[in-house]
Amino acid sequence: MVAFDLKSLLENLREQRPLVHNITNYVVMNFTANTLLAMGGSPVMAHSPDEVEEMVSLAGSLVINIGTLSTHWIESMLLAGKKANELGIPVILDPVGSGSTSLRTSTFRNLVRELKLTVVRGNASEILSIASDSIRTRGVETAHNTEHGLETAREVAREIDAVAAITGPVDLITDGTKVIRCHNGHPRLGTVTGTGCAATATIAAFATVTHDPLEATSAGLAFFGLAGELAGAKANSPGSFMICLLDAMYEISPEEFQAKARLEAT
Amino acid sequence: MVAFDLKSLLENLREQRPLVHNITNYVVMNFTANTLLAMGGSPVMAHSPDEVEEMVSLAGSLVINIGTLSTHWIESMLLAGKKANELGIPVILDPVGSGSTSLRTSTFRNLVRELKLTVVRGNASEILSIASDSIRTRGVETAHNTEHGLETAREVAREIDAVAAITGPVDLITDGTKVIRCHNGHPRLGTVTGTGCAATATIAAFATVTHDPLEATSAGLAFFGLAGELAGAKANSPGSFMICLLDAMYEISPEEFQAKARLEAT
Amino acid sequence: MVAFDLKSLLENLREQRPLVHNITNYVVMNFTANTLLAMGGSPVMAHSPDEVEEMVSLAGSLVINIGTLSTHWIESMLLAGKKANELGIPVILDPVGSGSTSLRTSTFRNLVRELKLTVVRGNASEILSIASDSIRTRGVETAHNTEHGLETAREVAREIDAVAAITGPVDLITDGTKVIRCHNGHPRLGTVTGTGCAATATIAAFATVTHDPLEATSAGLAFFGLAGELAGAKANSPGSFMICLLDAMYEISPEEFQAKARLEAT
Repeated sequence: MVAFDLKSLLENLREQRPLVHNITNYVVMNFTANTLLAMGGSPVMAHSPDEVEEMVSLAGSLVINIGTLSTHWIESMLLAGKKANELGIPVILDPVGSGSTSLRTSTFRNLVRELKLTVVRGNASEILSIASDSIRTRGVETAHNTEHGLETAREVAREIDAVAAITGPVDLITDGTKVIRCHNGHPRLGTVTGTGCAATATIAAFATVTHDPLEATSAGLAFFGLAGELAGAKANSPGSFMICLLDAMYEISPEEFQAKARLEAT
Repeated sequence: MVAFDLKSLLENLREQRPLVHNITNYVVMNFTANTLLAMGGSPVMAHSPDEVEEMVSLAGSLVINIGTLSTHWIESMLLAGKKANELGIPVILDPVGSGSTSLRTSTFRNLVRELKLTVVRGNASEILSIASDSIRTRGVETAHNTEHGLETAREVAREIDAVAAITGPVDLITDGTKVIRCHNGHPRLGTVTGTGCAATATIAAFATVTHDPLEATSAGLAFFGLAGELAGAKANSPGSFMICLLDAMYEISPEEFQAKARLEAT
Repeated sequence: MVAFDLKSLLENLREQRPLVHNITNYVVMNFTANTLLAMGGSPVMAHSPDEVEEMVSLAGSLVINIGTLSTHWIESMLLAGKKANELGIPVILDPVGSGSTSLRTSTFRNLVRELKLTVVRGNASEILSIASDSIRTRGVETAHNTEHGLETAREVAREIDAVAAITGPVDLITDGTKVIRCHNGHPRLGTVTGTGCAATATIAAFATVTHDPLEATSAGLAFFGLAGELAGAKANSPGSFMICLLDAMYEISPEEFQAKARLEAT
C-alpha cells in the first residue's frame, strides 16, 4: 500500500471548500456539481469565452471534459486552460469518447499539444486513442492486467506529458515512471451515467490541496471508488445507488478514507 | 393481448447493450442516459454537426428530441437523421412541444419531410400538431378513447409515414393500419420531468433488437409503463418515484416483462 | 408573523398548474423542472431567440437565470423579458454568480436597465454586486442581521426597482419600503446544487397566483425553506436530502404551508 496522507488531504479539502471550475458536458453537469458539493468542494460551471479566463483565475483547479463537444466550446477550453497554465492552476482533462469520433480524438490531441495538462483520466480506449501507433496497436485490453499493460500506460503518460489515469476494474495511475494501482471501486458504478466524469472531478478537487498530481489522482480515484463500495453495500439498483453514492461522498470521514483506500505501488 | 416475444427482446437488449445515439434536450439528457443504462442499453449524447454522422454510424438507433430546440441543432438532427436513413438505422422522433411554438411545429414538419422516421412518440397535441387541418380539427381529446380517435391516429401515422405513438392514460400505437393499445403506465409518471422523453428512448433501445417498429414501440412503452407501475407501488412522491423508476428498469426481468406487459390489439 | 393567505395561494397554484417559462442554466434545468412539477406548476425550458417570445406569451411567469451564461443567450433573455413586460407577465431574475465575473455582473446590470423586473433573488454578494459604490462598500456581511443591513437591502431594491430577495440563513425580502424576514430553511440546502435556483423558480410559480410580488416572494421562499426543513428531518446526506426535498414539495398541504411558514414583518 502507498503512504499518502489521505486523511489530511480530505480534512484540508473540507476546510478550504476549494472552487473547482468545470467546462464539462451537459449530461453530467448536475451530477458533477453534486459530487463536488457532497465531497466538500465548491463547483462552478462556466463555458463562455467571455468569462472562462476570469472564472478560472478564481478557482483552485480546472476540469476540461469533452463529452457533448461542439467546436465553439474548444476555444473556451483553450482559453481557460492557458490561463490556468499561466497561473499554475492544475488542469484535469477527461477525454470522453476520444477514439469514437475524429472530432473528439483530434480535440484530445489538440488539448494535449496546446496545454500543460496535470492529469488525464479516461478508460483505456480513450487514453490510448491519441497514443502513437506503436503503443496503440499493442491493444487496449492489455492495459490493466499485464506487465505489458503497465509499460503501455507509462509510455502514454510520457507522450501526453501528464499523469495518466486509466480507469477500469483496477485503475492504473502513472506519471510515466511510477505506477499506482487503485483497487477501490464497484461494478455498479457502470450503471449510472457520469460516474467517470465525476471521478475526474474528484481528482480535480484533491488537486487543489496537493501539488503532487500522482497523489491527487490516487486520492480522487480511491475516494470515488470507496464511495462506490459503500453505496454498493446499500443499493442494488442504479437509481438508489446513485443517491447512496452522493450520500457516501458526504459521509466518508478522513479516518475512514485513510483506512479503506486501497492504493498499491507497483 | 398481443403475442410479441418481449422476453427475448429484453434478453437480447441486455446481452447486446446497444449504443443509442441521442440528440436531445438539455433538461432530460441525464435522466435519459440513466434510463438507457438502467434498462440495459448504452447511451451516447452528441449534437455537433462535426461528429453526429460519425457517431450515429456507430449506433443501433437514433433519438431526435426537439425540446430546448435552437436552430443550429436542427442542422445536426438532419445530418444525423439522413446518415441513419442511409445506413438503415432506426430514427425515433420526440416532437416535444410541437404545437406550442411555430419553431417547434415547423421543425417537426421539416423532420417528417426530410427524413424517413421509424417512430414518432408524443402526446396527442404534439402528434396532431402537424396533421392536416381536417384531422386536427376533429380534436385532440378524442384521440385516446373513441373509435373516432383510433381512425385519427391511423390517419396521422399515414401522413407522417411512420409508426405513431400517442401516449396518455392509454397509449395508442399504430402504423396506419394496425393499432395497439398499451395499458401499462402510472399517473405519477406525470410528476417527473422527462418521463415522456425517457419513454421515447426506451423505444429506441428496443428498435435495435427488432426490425418491426410496431413491436419496438409496443415493447418500449410497455416496458416503461411497467417500470412506472412498479415504482408507483413503492413511492408516493415524485423524488423517490423517480429513483424507484430507474431501479425498476434495471430490475424487471425478461419473464416479468412478458408476464406483465398489457398490450392489446384492436 | 405576516398575514398572507398562503393556504389559498398553494391551493390555487395546484388547481391552475401554471406554466412557468425558464431561461436558465444547464446545471439546474432538470432539478428546476422537477421542483416546479413537484410543487404543482408546469415547467417549460426554452431559450431560442426564435421561440422565446411565443413561449413566454403562453406562460404565467418567466424565470431568467444567468448561470452558465453565454452571450447569445442574453439576446433571448431580453426578447423574452420585453415580451413579458409588454404582456404584464412577472419576470423573476436569478443573477447567479454576479460579482464573480464581469460578464455576469454586466449582464445583471443590463437586464435591470432593459427590463422591468418583478423580483430579483440571490445571495448577498450577488444582489449587492450591481449596487452603487456607496451601498456596496458597506459590505455584504451586514446585510442579514443588522439594522444597517435592512437599510442596505431597501436601498438595493429601490435601485433595481424590483422586490429584492437576499437569501441566506435568514432571507430578507423587500420592495424598498417594507421588509419581510423568512426564517424557513435548512443548512443542508447548501449541500445540493441548484437549490438557490429552485427557490427562484418557486417564487415564479407563486407569482402566477398573486399580483403582489412581496407576497409571491415570501410564499416562494417560505415554501422552499419549509420543504428543506421537512427533508432535513428525514435525510442527513445530500443525495437522499435532494430526493426528500422533491418529495416534500409535493407533500406539503396548503394547511401545513400556512401553519409552518415563518415570515416576519420588520
